[in-house]
Amino acid sequence: SLRRIKASGLKLQLCTNETQATRESFVRKLRALGFEVSAGEVTAPAPAACRLLRERGLRPHLLVHHDLVPEFAEVDKTNPNCVVLGDAAENFTYANLNEAFRFLIGMEKPVLISLGKGRYYKETDGLKLDVGAYMKALEYACDVQAEVVGKPAKSFFESALAELGVPAEQAIMIGDDIVNDVGGAQQCGMRALQVRTGKYR
Amino acid sequence: SLRRIKASGLKLQLCTNETQATRESFVRKLRALGFEVSAGEVTAPAPAACRLLRERGLRPHLLVHHDLVPEFAEVDKTNPNCVVLGDAAENFTYANLNEAFRFLIGMEKPVLISLGKGRYYKETDGLKLDVGAYMKALEYACDVQAEVVGKPAKSFFESALAELGVPAEQAIMIGDDIVNDVGGAQQCGMRALQVRTGKYR
Repeated sequence: SLRRIKASGLKLQLCTNETQATRESFVRKLRALGFEVSAGEVTAPAPAACRLLRERGLRPHLLVHHDLVPEFAEVDKTNPNCVVLGDAAENFTYANLNEAFRFLIGMEKPVLISLGKGRYYKETDGLKLDVGAYMKALEYACDVQAEVVGKPAKSFFESALAELGVPAEQAIMIGDDIVNDVGGAQQCGMRALQVRTGKYR
Repeated sequence: SLRRIKASGLKLQLCTNETQATRESFVRKLRALGFEVSAGEVTAPAPAACRLLRERGLRPHLLVHHDLVPEFAEVDKTNPNCVVLGDAAENFTYANLNEAFRFLIGMEKPVLISLGKGRYYKETDGLKLDVGAYMKALEYACDVQAEVVGKPAKSFFESALAELGVPAEQAIMIGDDIVNDVGGAQQCGMRALQVRTGKYR
């Protein structure tokens, strides 16, 4: 169906909440499955966060997955004035959480940017706490509210529209998640279509 | 002043939120400082939690500090139907947090008991996230509300009164913390007195 959309001349942008790897490796996985997409056709939380950091002159301390670090290669990370939190998985150690907390609590006005707010997810070896749980821990400790990048945040869909160069009224979001995909897109003025595949129940 | 209170014939119960060690080791520390107290004169979150577990037939999975584990020696921990969370410090690993989460999410009705709800505290090597932050993470992931044992919980002061064998009207709470000590005791029908020492500012 991706091929048919492209063949018809429609512009396409994939919106994913994947934060355990760079867009490049995400695209490699898709290509291995036979989908012809490029990194530029993917909107993901990390690049959206980079854009936000640039716009606001923020220098992050990163608590993210090892494999995601390259997405932030171009970003100035000296003398941090915000914390960017992703699904860090094995990097969610006691020491790393305390370190991120100390950066936040040491700021005059703590800025916490979270690459999602999922509660948990399933892997082959069982359920895992997702980034949202750690976001809540830091929010509580520092008495701040995190800014969430990624679906269903409005700014995330605006990012995707900017990449497409298309206004919201001329775009349609197709997804399997009623909150993250359909709800988020509608809040942004887009039409949305829910497919009954993937996580649809 | 402890000696004068005891000499006057008044009954005494120390109420602490200490959860990184057993009452026995807490008392050893106090005795080394010259205070003549016994473990029976200390009300602490872990023993209060044990009482609550017994009353409700709960079998805990423990995520607590190594040094606190002996407090739960008598408690049946097979086939857990609740999680008891304390300031586990180095035990707050990614694996241990996921394990506690899996126990909770696997319960028909998750029961999370937290030995406090502090945000953070200071140690010689810097600020550390306290049990409250991890409590919020698990609360969010499992969509439950933790039951907090320890000051300022009403049940905690009731526990202390039960140990004393004295009704609330005949007891007075003396402490340096306006919320945890004074507020908690007053909610329980006790009078309270704030001293301008310790953490008082």
